[in-house]
Amino acid sequence: MTNWTLARRTRLMDPGITQKLLKLTESPDIISLAGGLPAMQTFPVEAMAEACQRVFETNGADALQYSAGEGYAPLREWVCAELQKQHIRASADQIIITTGSQQALDLVAKVMVDAGSRVLAEKPTYMAGIQAFSPCEPEVVGIASDEQGPLPQDVAAKIGTGNDRARFMYTIPNFQNPSGRTMSKTRREALAEELVKLGLPFVEDNPYGDVWFEEPPPAALTSHASGQGIYLGSFSKVLAPGLRLGYMVAPRAIYDKLMYVKLASDLHTPSLNQRLVYEIIKDGFLDTHIPKIRELYRNKRDAMLAALDREMAGLGVTWTRPAGGMFLWLDLPKQVDTLTMFPKAIEHKVAYVPGAAFYASDPESNHMRLCYVTASIEQINTAIAALATTIKDELAKA
Amino acid sequence: MTNWTLARRTRLMDPGITQKLLKLTESPDIISLAGGLPAMQTFPVEAMAEACQRVFETNGADALQYSAGEGYAPLREWVCAELQKQHIRASADQIIITTGSQQALDLVAKVMVDAGSRVLAEKPTYMAGIQAFSPCEPEVVGIASDEQGPLPQDVAAKIGTGNDRARFMYTIPNFQNPSGRTMSKTRREALAEELVKLGLPFVEDNPYGDVWFEEPPPAALTSHASGQGIYLGSFSKVLAPGLRLGYMVAPRAIYDKLMYVKLASDLHTPSLNQRLVYEIIKDGFLDTHIPKIRELYRNKRDAMLAALDREMAGLGVTWTRPAGGMFLWLDLPKQVDTLTMFPKAIEHKVAYVPGAAFYASDPESNHMRLCYVTASIEQINTAIAALATTIKDELAKA
Repeated sequence: MTNWTLARRTRLMDPGITQKLLKLTESPDIISLAGGLPAMQTFPVEAMAEACQRVFETNGADALQYSAGEGYAPLREWVCAELQKQHIRASADQIIITTGSQQALDLVAKVMVDAGSRVLAEKPTYMAGIQAFSPCEPEVVGIASDEQGPLPQDVAAKIGTGNDRARFMYTIPNFQNPSGRTMSKTRREALAEELVKLGLPFVEDNPYGDVWFEEPPPAALTSHASGQGIYLGSFSKVLAPGLRLGYMVAPRAIYDKLMYVKLASDLHTPSLNQRLVYEIIKDGFLDTHIPKIRELYRNKRDAMLAALDREMAGLGVTWTRPAGGMFLWLDLPKQVDTLTMFPKAIEHKVAYVPGAAFYASDPESNHMRLCYVTASIEQINTAIAALATTIKDELAKA
Repeated sequence: MTNWTLARRTRLMDPGITQKLLKLTESPDIISLAGGLPAMQTFPVEAMAEACQRVFETNGADALQYSAGEGYAPLREWVCAELQKQHIRASADQIIITTGSQQALDLVAKVMVDAGSRVLAEKPTYMAGIQAFSPCEPEVVGIASDEQGPLPQDVAAKIGTGNDRARFMYTIPNFQNPSGRTMSKTRREALAEELVKLGLPFVEDNPYGDVWFEEPPPAALTSHASGQGIYLGSFSKVLAPGLRLGYMVAPRAIYDKLMYVKLASDLHTPSLNQRLVYEIIKDGFLDTHIPKIRELYRNKRDAMLAALDREMAGLGVTWTRPAGGMFLWLDLPKQVDTLTMFPKAIEHKVAYVPGAAFYASDPESNHMRLCYVTASIEQINTAIAALATTIKDELAKA
C-alpha cells in the first residue's frame, strides 16, 4: 500500500460547496452572472496576432529561450512609467513580472506568512486571493468596512500583538472584487496614515483600476505609504487574462526574498508572453484600447443597474453602484440564504456567486456577487428578471 | 518603522555563493559551460510563428481568455498518448498542465511536505528542484548512487520511521541533471520493487528523456510502479523553455489536492501557450524535430568528450559519458575544491558550476557540472583547454 502522508496544510484544501455549485452553471441554457470572465469581444486578437509576428520576426529565439526571473527589462521599465499615473515612484529593480497577479499573492504568502500568522483582509474579500495565501496557512481576520472602504480604526483594533501581530493587510481599493466598492480618497489617506502609524505592511491588489467608467479612481494607497506597500498590477482586465501576465512592485526590504520564491516557483514568467505584451503596448495601444473596454462595461453596468431598479423594486434588496470593474454586490433581506437559494436560481436558469464564499470567517449569508461584463445586455435583462422571480419565491416561502 | 516580520522559511532563502559566482560568468569574453540553456538554433521559430497565426485565426479569443486549471483538454489527451511510449497508462483526468515542470515541483511540495518532512533525493541532484521544495522546508536526505543510479538498499536505509518517515523520493532517471547519468533498466526494476515494498511515493522528473543520442532510455520508473509515482514532463528541451510549459501525471489519491494548489498558484498555465504548443505538435512535428536536436547535441557531446580525452590526460580527472541530455559531470582529484578554483577559471575565461551546489547536505567539493549544448564546438574546444590549464595550475599549487 502506498503511504500518501500529505502535508498538514492539505486538510484545509477543499474546493468547498461554492465550487461544487458553480459546476452547475456550466450548462449552456443557464445565464451565468457568476463568473469573472472579461468580455471576449474586448480581446484585441488582430493586434495580438500582428505583434506576435513582429516578436517572432525580430526576436523569435529570445522569446523562446529561458529569461531572467524578474522579467523582461523593457516591460519592467514600462511598468515604472505606468505607475507614475498612480503616483507611485518605483525603479525597475523593484518590479517582478508574475504569472498573473494570482502568482504574486502566492509569492507574498511564501515570504510573509507562517502557519497561524494573522493577515487582515477586507470583509468581504477576493476568495481566490485567500486561496493563494492558504498553502501558508494564515489566520485571515476580516476588517469591518463601510461604503468608503475598510475602517482604519478596525485595522488598529484587529492588528494583534506579539506573535499574533498581523503580517500585512490585503486590500483591493478600486472596484473591489466582490463588492464593486471603491475606497474614497479621504479613506485612502486615513487608512495609509493608520498603516504607517502601526508600521503594518500592506498588499494593494489593483487588477481593475484602469477600467473606470466616469473618472479615474483616486491615487493608489501605496502612493500614500511608500516603502510599506506591495503593489500588484495585471494585464488580465485591460488586455487578456489568458496570457497570465501581472506584476508586483516590492519595497527593497523584501524584494530579494520575493525573487527567491519567484525563481523557485516557475523560474520566470513565459518569455514570449512578456515580449508579446510589451510589443503591443509600447507605442500607446492601451490609450485607445482601454476606453473601448470602459465604454462596453459601463453600458453593461448601466443595463444591470436599470434591470435591478426595474425588477427588484419592493423586494428589500439593495446593491452597490460600481464606478468601474466587473462586479456588483447585492444585499438581500436577512432571511434569504443565497447558498440554499442557489439551486432554485439554477432552476430559473440564472447563476450568481453566493456571498458566503467571500468571507474568510463568519460568512454573511444574505449577499451575492453578480458580474455584468460577460453576459450580453439582453441576457442581463433576462437573468435579472429570473433572479427577481427566484427571490420572490424565496421570500414567499420564508 | 515598517515591521517586516517575514515567514520563518525565508531564513533559508539565500541565493548562495554559487549564484553569486555565476554572476561572474555573464561577461561576453567568458565561455560559459555553466548554464543550462538549450541551443537557440533548435528553436523552431518559423513553425511557432505559423502555428501562432493559426491559433489567432481560428481560436484567438479563446487563447486569450481564462481557461481550465487542469489545462487544455486536447493537450492533455496528447500527453496521455505520448506517455504510452514510456509505458505509462494514464487518462486525461490525471494530467495537470503546469507552468514549466518547475511549477510541478512547487505543487508537489505544497501537497506533500510539512516543515521538517524528510524527502529523499539522488546525490547529487537538481538544485532548482530542491529550491522549489524549499518554501515547504523539507529535510532533504541524499541517496547513495553508483553509475547505474540510486541504490535501492540506501532508500530502505534512509526512509526513516514515524513522523520522520520520508514523504517521497525525487529522482531524474534519464540523463540526470547534474550527473548526466541514466538509470539502467535493471536498476529501475529493482528501485521500483523497493519503492513498492516500502510504499514510498516518488516523483519522476523527466525533462530530458526524448533527447537521447544512441537509443531511447529504458521505460519510465513510473511504468514499474503505477499509482505510486508522480511523473513530470516538459516541452522545454524538445521545443522551447521560454513558453514555460510542462505537465504532471498524478495518481488519483492526490490529484484533487494538486489541482487545488495549482489554481491557488496561478489559476492556470497561459491559454495561448498551451494552444500554441498543441497546434505545433498535434500532427507529429516533434517526430521530425527532436531527431535534429539529438544530432546537434550528440555532436556537441562528442566534441566535449574528445576535448576532455585530449586535454585532461594525466590530470587524474574522470567524467561521465552521457547517453543523452545536456550535462556531464567531472570528478577531480580530492585536493581540488571547484568552488575555490572558480575565480581562477574565470581568469582563464571559462565557467562551470561547482559541484557543491548540487548537494542538499554534505556537499562534495571535487566535482563540476559542464553543459555541452549552449556553446559552439569551437568554444567547447577552447573552454576545455582553458579548464585543463586551470586544473593544472591548481594541482601544481596543492
